[in-house]
Amino acid sequence: MTIPFQKLQSEFNRVLVSLGFSVEKAEICATIFAENSRDGVYTHGLNRFPTFVEYVKKGLVNPGGTPTKEGALGSLERWEGNSGPGILNARFCMERAIELANENGIGCVAIKNTNHWMRAGAYGWQAAEAGMIGICFSNTIANLPPWGGIDPRLGNNPLVIAVPRKEGHVVLDMAISQYSVGKLNQYKSNRQELPEPGGYDAEGKLSTDAAAILHSQRLLPIGFWKGSGLSLMLDLLATVLSQGKSTAEVTKTENESGVSQVFICIKPDSSNPTAQLIEEIIAYSKSSRPVHEGGSISYPGENTLRTREKSLKDGVLVDERIWQTVLAL
Amino acid sequence: MTIPFQKLQSEFNRVLVSLGFSVEKAEICATIFAENSRDGVYTHGLNRFPTFVEYVKKGLVNPGGTPTKEGALGSLERWEGNSGPGILNARFCMERAIELANENGIGCVAIKNTNHWMRAGAYGWQAAEAGMIGICFSNTIANLPPWGGIDPRLGNNPLVIAVPRKEGHVVLDMAISQYSVGKLNQYKSNRQELPEPGGYDAEGKLSTDAAAILHSQRLLPIGFWKGSGLSLMLDLLATVLSQGKSTAEVTKTENESGVSQVFICIKPDSSNPTAQLIEEIIAYSKSSRPVHEGGSISYPGENTLRTREKSLKDGVLVDERIWQTVLAL
Repeated sequence: MTIPFQKLQSEFNRVLVSLGFSVEKAEICATIFAENSRDGVYTHGLNRFPTFVEYVKKGLVNPGGTPTKEGALGSLERWEGNSGPGILNARFCMERAIELANENGIGCVAIKNTNHWMRAGAYGWQAAEAGMIGICFSNTIANLPPWGGIDPRLGNNPLVIAVPRKEGHVVLDMAISQYSVGKLNQYKSNRQELPEPGGYDAEGKLSTDAAAILHSQRLLPIGFWKGSGLSLMLDLLATVLSQGKSTAEVTKTENESGVSQVFICIKPDSSNPTAQLIEEIIAYSKSSRPVHEGGSISYPGENTLRTREKSLKDGVLVDERIWQTVLAL
Repeated sequence: MTIPFQKLQSEFNRVLVSLGFSVEKAEICATIFAENSRDGVYTHGLNRFPTFVEYVKKGLVNPGGTPTKEGALGSLERWEGNSGPGILNARFCMERAIELANENGIGCVAIKNTNHWMRAGAYGWQAAEAGMIGICFSNTIANLPPWGGIDPRLGNNPLVIAVPRKEGHVVLDMAISQYSVGKLNQYKSNRQELPEPGGYDAEGKLSTDAAAILHSQRLLPIGFWKGSGLSLMLDLLATVLSQGKSTAEVTKTENESGVSQVFICIKPDSSNPTAQLIEEIIAYSKSSRPVHEGGSISYPGENTLRTREKSLKDGVLVDERIWQTVLAL
């Protein structure tokens, strides 16, 4: 079923206010949850909202927690997240990185003891809307084995890179696992084969069987050994720059609370050549002949815009059962 | 066969001086070429040296070309590479990024019209040696199809992330292709199967047959659609920040000259907790049970140090035929 965007937003808002969120904070949080579903990232929009509410009730997320500055050197800042809502803390940090980049060309804000920011890409869109190149990443609980290992010791640490563009921002939003646990569960329930290998089965063979991968817990990092290395580096950067919890420590919390995140903004030269260079790169990529007849090449963020338009026109797609849960909160 | 490091370095030096390099420039370039082989990156050490010499003779690389500043906003700078040797330009830019980060916490230097920097990781090690977190990447000629496409339209755009560490820096140095063309050729010559899929064959099936992948030209980006997006973003960042040639334009040069690169440095808090946090992350990753009995988990850069030690003790491994070529130059 579909629900108008405004209705989705106002229901989230109602629940958040009832949980003790200030009017202003409830508004921002509700809007981002609704936007995540609007843009097609249902797993981090409506579908995640009941879990978020539970975390607030458990005291893992403090509705009143706001970031406080812990240290700074020029355009590099370190903040304490005080267990505030991940969405609000992340919005705040990207806003601060935008200010720093406006003043100094580039800015970097690291935050510790924050919470799950839901859809990582939201903060890339935020930077791009402000005309900034945005880069951000978070560590997570361990859910990927390091290369050569069996037991999960790395996070799938989402990474976002955004470049502003008048005709639609280019926003890459990817986790370091080939498929998320949520996605694997979805393929398992539908008894569908994964389109590409997503991990190893219990015998150590590369597999497209979601159930076998979930059983072995040997999810594939992107690019095998390469993603394994990239995940470790993102954890190192997030932990060192924020002086916060590493994936090792976050894993001990069991609830994935108190994570570490980094937000970088760079101010692009907004003169004419920049826009032309971006179009040239996108056009060149799209000039590749498609693998499947009638297929086309998309740039990161292109499908998001398409889904957004459709959601605003026809309503946002929701899982009816979860929607009823939220209505009853 | 093996050659003492000093001998390798002095031969490179001799050739470079004969090509018109200043004494100082020849020394730096020769040292980095020798270090690349010393650290086990033979493809971008001795093995690439004859091609480099050819590029200088063809006028694609100008031994006297040095970077000139084109623009700056605070800690963000834009430089023109003036077709100088890629190694020297890259060393210069990372040095400048280190200075900017020392002054202001973070610094970013973009350069256009530069040349192949050989081993990308060299500049990560450079940053880490200076106690800095270093991030750098380059665009390249198109050698990967975008996701959903057949024809190469993306570069394998190497990406480096380095974190300084007393017991050995952590340095990730990876291209966005699962295997380089050089690596595929090596597997093809040896009639060996790739350990993991490296691309698609002419029928569009995922393959571990290097010859079939080289034939189809459908090399795999890391993580399928994810690496495809990441490669595009790195090209966008390098091109926009340097206002230089994109992969589309570099591909037209046919020789991969005039590429665009970005160098970012961030100053880590060098107080005690930082070192502890790094050790905690590495130790946690190594605590995963190995897939193969007796196996172990390595952090990025760990094997480099091992190869380096061995090369300095027993001599640097060289391809005798290429070594003879260099001696005759």
